[in-house]
Amino acid sequence: MFSKILIANRGEIALRVIRTCQKLGIKTVAIYSEADAESLFVREADEAYCVGKPPVNQSYLNADEIISIAKKSGAEAVHPGYGLLSENAAFAKKCNEENLVFIGPSPEIIASMGSKIEARKTMKEAGVPIIEGINTSLESEEEAVLAAKEIGYPLMLKASAGGGGIGMQLVHSEEELLKAFAGNKKRAESFFGDGAMFLEKYIDEPHHIEVQILADSHGNVVPLWERECSIQRRNQKVVEEAPSPFINEETRSNMLEAAVKAAQHIGYSNAGTIEFLVDKEQNFYFLEMNTRLQVEHPVTEEITGLDLVEEQLKVAVGEKLSFTKEDVKRNGHAIEVRIYAEDPKTFFPSPGKITEFQLPQGDGIRNECAIEAGSQVTPFYDPMIGKLIAWGGTRFEACSRLKLALEEYKIEGIKTNIPMLIQTVSHKQFLSGYTTTQFVNEYYLPTLTSTK
Amino acid sequence: MFSKILIANRGEIALRVIRTCQKLGIKTVAIYSEADAESLFVREADEAYCVGKPPVNQSYLNADEIISIAKKSGAEAVHPGYGLLSENAAFAKKCNEENLVFIGPSPEIIASMGSKIEARKTMKEAGVPIIEGINTSLESEEEAVLAAKEIGYPLMLKASAGGGGIGMQLVHSEEELLKAFAGNKKRAESFFGDGAMFLEKYIDEPHHIEVQILADSHGNVVPLWERECSIQRRNQKVVEEAPSPFINEETRSNMLEAAVKAAQHIGYSNAGTIEFLVDKEQNFYFLEMNTRLQVEHPVTEEITGLDLVEEQLKVAVGEKLSFTKEDVKRNGHAIEVRIYAEDPKTFFPSPGKITEFQLPQGDGIRNECAIEAGSQVTPFYDPMIGKLIAWGGTRFEACSRLKLALEEYKIEGIKTNIPMLIQTVSHKQFLSGYTTTQFVNEYYLPTLTSTK
Repeated sequence: MFSKILIANRGEIALRVIRTCQKLGIKTVAIYSEADAESLFVREADEAYCVGKPPVNQSYLNADEIISIAKKSGAEAVHPGYGLLSENAAFAKKCNEENLVFIGPSPEIIASMGSKIEARKTMKEAGVPIIEGINTSLESEEEAVLAAKEIGYPLMLKASAGGGGIGMQLVHSEEELLKAFAGNKKRAESFFGDGAMFLEKYIDEPHHIEVQILADSHGNVVPLWERECSIQRRNQKVVEEAPSPFINEETRSNMLEAAVKAAQHIGYSNAGTIEFLVDKEQNFYFLEMNTRLQVEHPVTEEITGLDLVEEQLKVAVGEKLSFTKEDVKRNGHAIEVRIYAEDPKTFFPSPGKITEFQLPQGDGIRNECAIEAGSQVTPFYDPMIGKLIAWGGTRFEACSRLKLALEEYKIEGIKTNIPMLIQTVSHKQFLSGYTTTQFVNEYYLPTLTSTK
Repeated sequence: MFSKILIANRGEIALRVIRTCQKLGIKTVAIYSEADAESLFVREADEAYCVGKPPVNQSYLNADEIISIAKKSGAEAVHPGYGLLSENAAFAKKCNEENLVFIGPSPEIIASMGSKIEARKTMKEAGVPIIEGINTSLESEEEAVLAAKEIGYPLMLKASAGGGGIGMQLVHSEEELLKAFAGNKKRAESFFGDGAMFLEKYIDEPHHIEVQILADSHGNVVPLWERECSIQRRNQKVVEEAPSPFINEETRSNMLEAAVKAAQHIGYSNAGTIEFLVDKEQNFYFLEMNTRLQVEHPVTEEITGLDLVEEQLKVAVGEKLSFTKEDVKRNGHAIEVRIYAEDPKTFFPSPGKITEFQLPQGDGIRNECAIEAGSQVTPFYDPMIGKLIAWGGTRFEACSRLKLALEEYKIEGIKTNIPMLIQTVSHKQFLSGYTTTQFVNEYYLPTLTSTK
């Protein structure tokens, strides 16, 4: 096992990785921006080095500086967490060139899954169902209009390098497509440095369901069941659960099989997630593959008893997976909510100083939180300040515990989305288990939300 | 199910019961002494009534006042928690007479298990192994000396009504017995109003291991595995775990069977615990039966996924257990530590005001804690302020997580036993899994403990 690793991330996920390292006796090196100098994850690491100023491009995305700190500190590997450099093929390559183990798959796999157009092609080859659409980059509005005619409206216009909903738009007609194309292409260029656009048929009442897999460097791929992540705001997940209450056992079995096939086809190793859209008839289609740990990985840990960060580390040192698909039993039900420092009415970030803070507790309650009383939530980073996970023997029990824990959460000084989350997890549509990606648009009533 | 219950307890266990009630949609009525008016459990209950002044005999032990509050508030049942009135047969009887369901077994069973001499007789009848000793009350030193000759030294002198180590003493010779008898008898009289004394053969290298059972009013008894609770200070448990790392599968199976036999023999219903002493050859002997929820019940919940308070409530309304022995799978390993407001060098209580407080968090970490920043720990009650429970897929993982969580615990303003707990759970003897009730005496080095 490694004796020291650098964590190229911040906040709750840095703390999460540190805890597993401490458990395994691995020393940790944190990097932090000037804005994060007082953070919990910095204090908890064995060593910590300032990597620059906020925002991220001057610090957490500064690959050269990060690699230089890793080498200086004697770290043998780099854990990228999620977001930031976690799916940056160039960074992974640089790590490898500098004899640092990048805890993730090869740069080539990161690159190929990072391009949605390429990933679509690859998955088609692997026999994984993809949404009807085009597998080439659209260079102009004219090309887009022609392609759209072939598939038929409504359509999703998407950026090949996209993520977080950026460069993505639903279009119902040629008129809407013409209006949307240039703007989204430009946004994709400026955000991702890549303006390649493509089209997919729009799936009605879409459910976002994803399969967690673990793959080692010896060709073994084990699926760790699925997660339902349909509830999103601003195209970002806010509530995630395992197992999905929507799909039946046959669909589940087919989706797990497809995910394993996808990972095997590309020779994947590391924890990974194959995201699918599932329509109301339970047809499922490949959406994208995330070649890193997901924000929502704890729900999988809760129902399987595994520590996914530990498994990532083991795979990265070349160990074989110590279990098969049959060994991974599904135990109960887990739901995660993301706690954001944001106005629950507008979903706009709400930075500020946290004056009072107390985590909920009790049976089945897990917290993954990077803040404490006195913490400053700065405007420089994603406003997610933590996650709350509830486990129950049944989905009903998990829902009940989650709602109570949200009510117990004590956080003062900033606005948070907790009122929105309480409304969501109390909603009869959520309790019914049939949720689509349109849930927040359809059911959320910000005017009823008290921002206590 | 009940629509409203009164919780005749305080602190973390009151909060614990409230949470399960909230989950099940049951309204809760708290009682509190004047010293506890600002407590978390009082705020969390739907209703709360002052029951008198500290100490306990003027408030939490005031059966008539508690019953009067229960009736006035419209509660249908009383949950006694642990300690206080939880094993008071007269209180249980009064509840029943006033048409309040006492959440526990019948007053007759409480009384018969509350007398250790009677419990020994009953268990012998049931075919459960008991420690060699006498089954009658010793009236005089002369009687004790005669009985001791028959059994042979070393011996444990015990109070029949005893608990928490009061009225109990190890004697190696007639001289020591003569010295110990009158004082312990007097102590038993003043603490329990019952000076009945008896003798048991002393078991060398004793392990305290207990079996959790659930029994309904239809004659079904299901064992929920065992807990190892050998690590004690001042005859009170401080570290408890499930499963026991000491016993082998054959012993486990025999102990579970004996516990079921014991409960069936007396027609028990409710959650209950049959405590055993286990010697180094894995022979086990009945020690006592606790006819209530135990402090350490969460470790059983962690490895079984059950909510024991919920099961108590279901049994109390007459429901049948919804599972059999075979259904209750053992999943991983859980360890609980009791957090005491006490000096870790002397084990003396350390009351005071908590100025800073932050619970540990993360994968596998559960908190059951009744305090918060600003709480006053008064000298009137048991100084246990909460419990920390760590779960892991293996015992090693649970141990590692527990140690890290203890180090993460932030509590300022009072002394706590956290340094003692960290030393204990890091000790190679503890990690080896072979711990006896003499652990603290043999291995704990208070001089090495920093009381940060």
